[in-house]
Amino acid sequence: MRAVDWIDGHIRYLDQTLLPHEERFVDTDDVRVVEDAIRGLGIRGAPAIGVAAAFGVVLAVKAKNADHSLSVRRRVEEAIKSIGSTRPTAVNLFNALHRMKMIAERNPHASEARLLQLLEAEAKAIQEDDIRACDRIGELGASLLGHGVSLLTHCNAGALATAGSGTALSVITAAARQGKVVRVFVDETRPLLQGSRLTAWELQKAGIPVVLITDSTAASVLRDGKVEAVIVGADRIAANGDAANKVGTYPLAVLASRHNVPFYVAAPTSTLDREAPNGSAIPIEERDAKEITHFAGVRVAPEGIGVYAPAFDVTPNELITAIVTEKDILRQPFAAAIARTLKVS
Amino acid sequence: MRAVDWIDGHIRYLDQTLLPHEERFVDTDDVRVVEDAIRGLGIRGAPAIGVAAAFGVVLAVKAKNADHSLSVRRRVEEAIKSIGSTRPTAVNLFNALHRMKMIAERNPHASEARLLQLLEAEAKAIQEDDIRACDRIGELGASLLGHGVSLLTHCNAGALATAGSGTALSVITAAARQGKVVRVFVDETRPLLQGSRLTAWELQKAGIPVVLITDSTAASVLRDGKVEAVIVGADRIAANGDAANKVGTYPLAVLASRHNVPFYVAAPTSTLDREAPNGSAIPIEERDAKEITHFAGVRVAPEGIGVYAPAFDVTPNELITAIVTEKDILRQPFAAAIARTLKVS
Repeated sequence: MRAVDWIDGHIRYLDQTLLPHEERFVDTDDVRVVEDAIRGLGIRGAPAIGVAAAFGVVLAVKAKNADHSLSVRRRVEEAIKSIGSTRPTAVNLFNALHRMKMIAERNPHASEARLLQLLEAEAKAIQEDDIRACDRIGELGASLLGHGVSLLTHCNAGALATAGSGTALSVITAAARQGKVVRVFVDETRPLLQGSRLTAWELQKAGIPVVLITDSTAASVLRDGKVEAVIVGADRIAANGDAANKVGTYPLAVLASRHNVPFYVAAPTSTLDREAPNGSAIPIEERDAKEITHFAGVRVAPEGIGVYAPAFDVTPNELITAIVTEKDILRQPFAAAIARTLKVS
Repeated sequence: MRAVDWIDGHIRYLDQTLLPHEERFVDTDDVRVVEDAIRGLGIRGAPAIGVAAAFGVVLAVKAKNADHSLSVRRRVEEAIKSIGSTRPTAVNLFNALHRMKMIAERNPHASEARLLQLLEAEAKAIQEDDIRACDRIGELGASLLGHGVSLLTHCNAGALATAGSGTALSVITAAARQGKVVRVFVDETRPLLQGSRLTAWELQKAGIPVVLITDSTAASVLRDGKVEAVIVGADRIAANGDAANKVGTYPLAVLASRHNVPFYVAAPTSTLDREAPNGSAIPIEERDAKEITHFAGVRVAPEGIGVYAPAFDVTPNELITAIVTEKDILRQPFAAAIARTLKVS
């Protein structure tokens, strides 16, 4: 199962808003459909958004209704501007768009056909890099876990969130293949229930026992010693290791620290942001109030009240035991480890 | 508005499962209807459960279909056994039933009619004690708050949870009447959304600005210094001050402590349990898995997964700044303060 893929010159994605009830793949060569899917969480997860964005640039540039009086380079710039405005937090989106922009800038004299070839090749390279990164993250992360462990995860950092086998869930499924994993406690992850709908679904497909809990039950699970480690993904990791991830990750890290449970963040190097010195430099998206006041179209809160709906929170690096990337397992001091990793990559 | 009341020899309660969409009062003289309402959260909140239980005993004893070959005392005992099995955590239930039992035991020679009178009077006394306690908790608690404060609460500890004006919400509405309260952040409180459905509704009716958040957003709200205090109710407070309350209270207390925000528990002395030396002696109810796997009747998680659904968690006393009862504001060391309070009452 690939959450986002490139098939014969168009994008195919699994519409995640319909899971777990329906597995519907959407085929499109319209970049606006892709942008709407990113905004509406049909395509979600930082690495998957990055891959979809790269292929989206290709679709935009070659679209029949594109303004062909503009140079390819200008069309790439326009597409990047538009796709880059869909969601603000996942840095993979901007890193992927930056790679696409570099292709256009470094080949100013290429023909339109040649440049399109190069752009498509770069998007495929971004996809393949992510697939490889996921597998390597799984291998490296699994080495951190002992035998007979129970784990806890939040939101969805699985195959659905990447082009490949996932980040946090790649670690879990790799460890499960080694017979190490007893069960996984899954936070339901309000408001959009990525835990109940997506992670429970993925783990069940992988044959790994799931125990679904509400987000705030995680505190009791950690206090009662029911899990040996917490593993989550990330949407952006600052240069000092502060990590933005789905809202609810920060309290999980605080509780894990209080109860001496290791707290691991699994993410490809494309999630590292060398420009953000620390977490306070990471833009945090606010979502529509309706995601909290309504459920499945039904209003659950009275009308006329205020709502505060940040999609992410920032976990300070001192609460993170290790960051598992495809290059290495990074540990404190993270600033040095991240600088080293970015120099190598 | 009274969540539970005694009208002309029968119970009238507001069916809280229908809020905020519909305000439907149910009139019943059938104790089984009352028991089902407690089990199904039509009547909820520790003090309200206690009051409903006391009146429930009266209904059971005088029911036309009761076994009138049994003595009133035996009928009281049978009723207590049945009503006492509805929910395990709120100690107010057992404290109220104990008061009813004492009436029967202390009047072995009273006529049936006289004993029924005494039982009804005791149930009314339990109700009136709660009404007075709520008001006094409001006054005392409001004295803890400064002017221009923003507050955070979890679940519903309002008029809906008591016979009177609430516990935590009595503090908030009393402080609001003094012009002290700017806004109240309300945790939606998964899985049954008592925050979105009940607390937001009550505060809005009281004209207090509400900001609804998901439970795990509270961590960001506390870290960002958006609130000056957290106030919650309790379902049972052990002799050392450990407090059981709706699941999600414990992580809130941990985060409040981390960010130096005072954490107040407001509860009548009927919520104190002298028999439980500490939190580990408090039975924690587990609820039906469907409360998490389904939302508004719609399945949101795949079938066949495990679920862990405790309704409550325990906050250790060292994370509690003060416990506001109708007698006094209790502070560390709580064991001594609670013993003193129980001796006086």
